[in-house]
Amino acid sequence: MSEYDLVIIGAGPGGLTAGLYAARARMNVLLIEKAAPGGQVLVTDWIENYPGFPEGISGFDLAEKIKDQALTLGLDIETAEVQGLDLSGKIKEVILKEKRIQTKSVIIASGASPRKLGVGEDKFMGKGVSFCGTCDGPFFKDKVVVAVGGGDTAIQESIFLTRFAKKVYIVHRRDELRATKILQERAFANDKIEFIWDSVVTGMDGFFSVEKVNVKNLKTGDASEIEANGCFIWIGILPNTEFIKGAVKTDESGFILVDTQMQTNVPGVFAIGDVRDTPLRQIATAVGDGAVAAFCAEHYVENL
Amino acid sequence: MSEYDLVIIGAGPGGLTAGLYAARARMNVLLIEKAAPGGQVLVTDWIENYPGFPEGISGFDLAEKIKDQALTLGLDIETAEVQGLDLSGKIKEVILKEKRIQTKSVIIASGASPRKLGVGEDKFMGKGVSFCGTCDGPFFKDKVVVAVGGGDTAIQESIFLTRFAKKVYIVHRRDELRATKILQERAFANDKIEFIWDSVVTGMDGFFSVEKVNVKNLKTGDASEIEANGCFIWIGILPNTEFIKGAVKTDESGFILVDTQMQTNVPGVFAIGDVRDTPLRQIATAVGDGAVAAFCAEHYVENL
Repeated sequence: MSEYDLVIIGAGPGGLTAGLYAARARMNVLLIEKAAPGGQVLVTDWIENYPGFPEGISGFDLAEKIKDQALTLGLDIETAEVQGLDLSGKIKEVILKEKRIQTKSVIIASGASPRKLGVGEDKFMGKGVSFCGTCDGPFFKDKVVVAVGGGDTAIQESIFLTRFAKKVYIVHRRDELRATKILQERAFANDKIEFIWDSVVTGMDGFFSVEKVNVKNLKTGDASEIEANGCFIWIGILPNTEFIKGAVKTDESGFILVDTQMQTNVPGVFAIGDVRDTPLRQIATAVGDGAVAAFCAEHYVENL
Repeated sequence: MSEYDLVIIGAGPGGLTAGLYAARARMNVLLIEKAAPGGQVLVTDWIENYPGFPEGISGFDLAEKIKDQALTLGLDIETAEVQGLDLSGKIKEVILKEKRIQTKSVIIASGASPRKLGVGEDKFMGKGVSFCGTCDGPFFKDKVVVAVGGGDTAIQESIFLTRFAKKVYIVHRRDELRATKILQERAFANDKIEFIWDSVVTGMDGFFSVEKVNVKNLKTGDASEIEANGCFIWIGILPNTEFIKGAVKTDESGFILVDTQMQTNVPGVFAIGDVRDTPLRQIATAVGDGAVAAFCAEHYVENL
């Protein structure tokens, strides 16, 4: 029965980078991805902050390039959904529906998913709807945007958006914010920010991209319409860790805790990119994580 | 007197990435570089492991692309050499020869330099001479290489090279290694590795690239010649931190210590890429560091 040096779970930019480093270093490596390689990048319309592309690049094209590079360097990618992990032994097991795969080390790169409103925003992904101010804020210069949420991220990011947008409406379902006091004060003092309390976004509309956002007041039941070019949704981000079931340590939100080598509390098991507890979720950071984890996994296996 | 939100020191991939993130986030940011933007990447012949370039890319071209991107996104780059830092106040000072620049935050991205032999290897940079196994090892498939050094890095990397090269001569100036016992044992047991003790490399020769490496035995004085296609030099790496003079905490080798936000022991002062204490020095990792540091510097300044 064959056994891998390394199994990588997830083919976003982080997983693919780990894969191309590991394959290039001649590790016996397999990458498992349940859908198409590329991860969230695939649904990212336009990227102008991944270093190396001065004219910018579409998410689809960048994902293709990184995938092609990994394949060229010898990475094997298998399409399957990981059901669970058995990390108890020196040889770890990655559990698929039809088989178990033995491996000396594992890199978890399964990503995270922004929580959605479920009001038809999928139609406008990359066409006005965003979950990331750092990524997309600069595209909304002198535009009007709606932001949804009341936590730290929502408020911090809404303040950030005022660097670009001429107006930011923050729609929040309650009449007070969860965000820390200092962020609240700063938002209240910001001329460009207007709060729409006790309200939820119920839909959005537009021809090519977002033109209007529908809002409903939960107390009065009144429906209204905001003319806006964008809608930023910050109601939480969920790590894709269903299959992990406590096998590695996470923070209270479920993001995997790692050390500077990207290693989890289980030796030989690493976590990278959006699924780990990280200060920033970007292609650039996932790629850096992937290189480190592959390098450290190689050392781990070498010294096993 | 104007004051910056952020001053970045060094225009390698890490510094440029921090710069493009900061400029895009509309920070009032200045990048200072003493030479041409690009850093060590400029002297890197060919790169096949930076994600996004399936056909590979020359170091020069990649450096140009990242620089152009940073300029397009509004980054100001000034050519000057930093002489010192005054980090004692809330407003920090970056000291140049002719002026002092005031800034709320600083990112140190000044890189590191591999220690050289000084036997004419500069002529063969990217033409057989390398300081990085992860970067260049795969280019030496079925070739013969000479490795210089006796520490952990030299031995670990030499073992790594045997995945590609058919023969690795390790030239070491003493008759025993500094490397940890387990690495020594593994190297001694490796059929592809041959040690040349009590010896130093005195020169190298070749038409287009390295063909011969000259070696001298320090005990006997005998000179000899090894037919080899490459020469990996692992006699140390020095952080470019002359101008820092103890202003931030470093490890015993002088690499700057940072937390997961890339922040040093001085609030508002960050360090990224090769100059920091990192498990891996690659373009991919520098780029990831740069994005994190710019994001965290922006939060730091926002909350100042």
